[in-house]
Amino acid sequence: MTEEEIRTQIMHAAETVRRTNPMAPSLTNTVTVNFVANAQIAVGGSAAMFYLPDEGEALGALGGATYFNVGTLLPVYEQTVPLTLEALRHAGKPWVLDPVAVGVGALRTKLLLQMKEYRPDIIRGNASEIIALAGLWRLKGGAETTTARGVDSTDSVSAAKQAAAALAKWTGGAVSVSGVDDYVTDGTVGAVSHGGSHFMEKITGSGCSLGGVSAVYLCAAPPFTAALTAVSAYNLAGLRAGRKTAGPASFQTAFLDELYLASPEEIAENPFELEEVLE
Amino acid sequence: MTEEEIRTQIMHAAETVRRTNPMAPSLTNTVTVNFVANAQIAVGGSAAMFYLPDEGEALGALGGATYFNVGTLLPVYEQTVPLTLEALRHAGKPWVLDPVAVGVGALRTKLLLQMKEYRPDIIRGNASEIIALAGLWRLKGGAETTTARGVDSTDSVSAAKQAAAALAKWTGGAVSVSGVDDYVTDGTVGAVSHGGSHFMEKITGSGCSLGGVSAVYLCAAPPFTAALTAVSAYNLAGLRAGRKTAGPASFQTAFLDELYLASPEEIAENPFELEEVLE
Amino acid sequence: MTEEEIRTQIMHAAETVRRTNPMAPSLTNTVTVNFVANAQIAVGGSAAMFYLPDEGEALGALGGATYFNVGTLLPVYEQTVPLTLEALRHAGKPWVLDPVAVGVGALRTKLLLQMKEYRPDIIRGNASEIIALAGLWRLKGGAETTTARGVDSTDSVSAAKQAAAALAKWTGGAVSVSGVDDYVTDGTVGAVSHGGSHFMEKITGSGCSLGGVSAVYLCAAPPFTAALTAVSAYNLAGLRAGRKTAGPASFQTAFLDELYLASPEEIAENPFELEEVLE
Repeated sequence: MTEEEIRTQIMHAAETVRRTNPMAPSLTNTVTVNFVANAQIAVGGSAAMFYLPDEGEALGALGGATYFNVGTLLPVYEQTVPLTLEALRHAGKPWVLDPVAVGVGALRTKLLLQMKEYRPDIIRGNASEIIALAGLWRLKGGAETTTARGVDSTDSVSAAKQAAAALAKWTGGAVSVSGVDDYVTDGTVGAVSHGGSHFMEKITGSGCSLGGVSAVYLCAAPPFTAALTAVSAYNLAGLRAGRKTAGPASFQTAFLDELYLASPEEIAENPFELEEVLE
Repeated sequence: MTEEEIRTQIMHAAETVRRTNPMAPSLTNTVTVNFVANAQIAVGGSAAMFYLPDEGEALGALGGATYFNVGTLLPVYEQTVPLTLEALRHAGKPWVLDPVAVGVGALRTKLLLQMKEYRPDIIRGNASEIIALAGLWRLKGGAETTTARGVDSTDSVSAAKQAAAALAKWTGGAVSVSGVDDYVTDGTVGAVSHGGSHFMEKITGSGCSLGGVSAVYLCAAPPFTAALTAVSAYNLAGLRAGRKTAGPASFQTAFLDELYLASPEEIAENPFELEEVLE
Repeated sequence: MTEEEIRTQIMHAAETVRRTNPMAPSLTNTVTVNFVANAQIAVGGSAAMFYLPDEGEALGALGGATYFNVGTLLPVYEQTVPLTLEALRHAGKPWVLDPVAVGVGALRTKLLLQMKEYRPDIIRGNASEIIALAGLWRLKGGAETTTARGVDSTDSVSAAKQAAAALAKWTGGAVSVSGVDDYVTDGTVGAVSHGGSHFMEKITGSGCSLGGVSAVYLCAAPPFTAALTAVSAYNLAGLRAGRKTAGPASFQTAFLDELYLASPEEIAENPFELEEVLE
């Protein structure tokens, strides 16, 4: 695909979501769950959150794509995650994984290991999480663990490109690495997306909500396009909101407003460059 | 009651809440729990959220009216809900039910079936939820399930009037149906309330927080008045906030501010018409 | 220490946090968890929330100081709290206790009784919670229970000074009592801090997030300084935000912005007076 074709697909994904209001259910953390839902609604989707196994099965089958964020695990997730993944496989529905805090705790490790065989259509994380997940899944570019800071990244996006490509090749989907510049790859081609604001690291949930919004676009587009549409919308809205605000909380409010106000054309025009994935 | 008498009762309910700061405990979903609490405080009440059975029993007995929102269920609710309902019955305290996502999952269905005999003093939901709850409880106007969209309504408020009246007759309380125009009924008379903003559907929690605020007013007024006071305050604050804002997040901020700033007189003057319930 | 020396320590604590971005994990309630995380980030710290025992153990050992808020308990906390406290003791890491709703429910009482022997480095609460915790721990100035309003205070800060001092003497740390004026003591000296806004009682989470921010400063300073730095930052940001806003939700946004914008010098200059603790 040429850059022009990709931009057309992004515009189409953003338009389709606004027109069809697809529902993307989420199993996500309790810290940023409200931000995730409001961001999903702001771009034109619909949100529904679940904890219990049979709710995950039911909502997963009803929804267009499901978002899994392993940020704050509860005991019942030991049942909910595998049963929902089975229901999604059975229904042929795609899903997004946000491997928050990979490496912390036995249940998180167990669930993330289980998820490998279910091949998430989009994986979204910061550089450290992407490298650590590739390590956990014993893929190229991975490392045993790099998340010595809990939920924060200690690696640069560039350092995670090899791991991102290896994960994308394994899943057959896309991987989205968040940082100052964002990187989206399907294992063959990569896109470096620009924009955003330094305030995105001064609030909690800019990453989580990007994962949730990626799931909304995944209801309407294939993984690489969906992930890049989400990243483009975030970089555009972040840039605009950052210009208008002087603190993190007013930034967050302005950011959600700008996410709502951004047109499909503007999202498609947000700057990115394509690059080949080096072997 | 005449419209004039109802408006006097609404003003009295809003005044009493501001003066007495009643505590309305909640078992509610984790997505919008913060919005629920802040809305309850904004109108003059006090909030306290619980998950565990003995906390529900203790807070339910301490509070003026308790709010149950079945949006994101946890396993412990299988104990918490019936034990808290028993404690409320024993203490003679009223309660509000928000049947979010009725029809999804076995535990939600079990809990909603149990609730029938405890006759909630106010039921608040969107049109699809009201129709589906009446269906689950085998009442007139109900349908087996209409919530094919998870938490969103696919029915109009008008289509839910018969189900709302049947629910109100069963409970002896009031039913509040949320939509473009809102409808509140005690099974004999109905009030169609106007105002609000299209942004109320572009944020998560406008319905949940309305349920929580209904519980606050239920501490100070009978069900029909309490439900209509809550709806009037929401329509007023929504209209004012919508005029000042261009996006959903700044709308939500302005909405909570306007909820706080609205005087009892202004809430009582918010437009509604009465209509008889047709058999 | 003189007032001048204390102000120098406050400035140093605020500066160190901005420079080192310390991670303060939290087990906290679901109502205000997002506000806690964003406030921790706004002052320069990093947030990570947990529910499960082994996540508490891992994050507690990784973090600089851990925040425990017993606001909305879940069943798994029966394991998580003691195991995390053991891990903190083993790692020699300090912690902050927020005894929200002390007196409500059997699990809360059990956990708060267990916590006594682990001697929290900072205890933060409203006056009623401080009096009730001292009562539960059978210390001077305590009372069996005073929290007849769930999570709200029914006592004045002055009425809690004896209980606060007794708690501080028991723990060897500091106690922070929140109210119109705030009071911080190490059992020997007390500081009465001024500022804030009446809006801080019109939103949920101003107390919880103060506890979380106290934990952030506890990563960089001893308990009394850390607690007073947090209170000073809150009173400064609250005063500034209250002057700019007319409603509680816009206040909360402005408050987080001001928390982010306050310089270490300004925080250190926020007005307080020292007083001796009377026996």
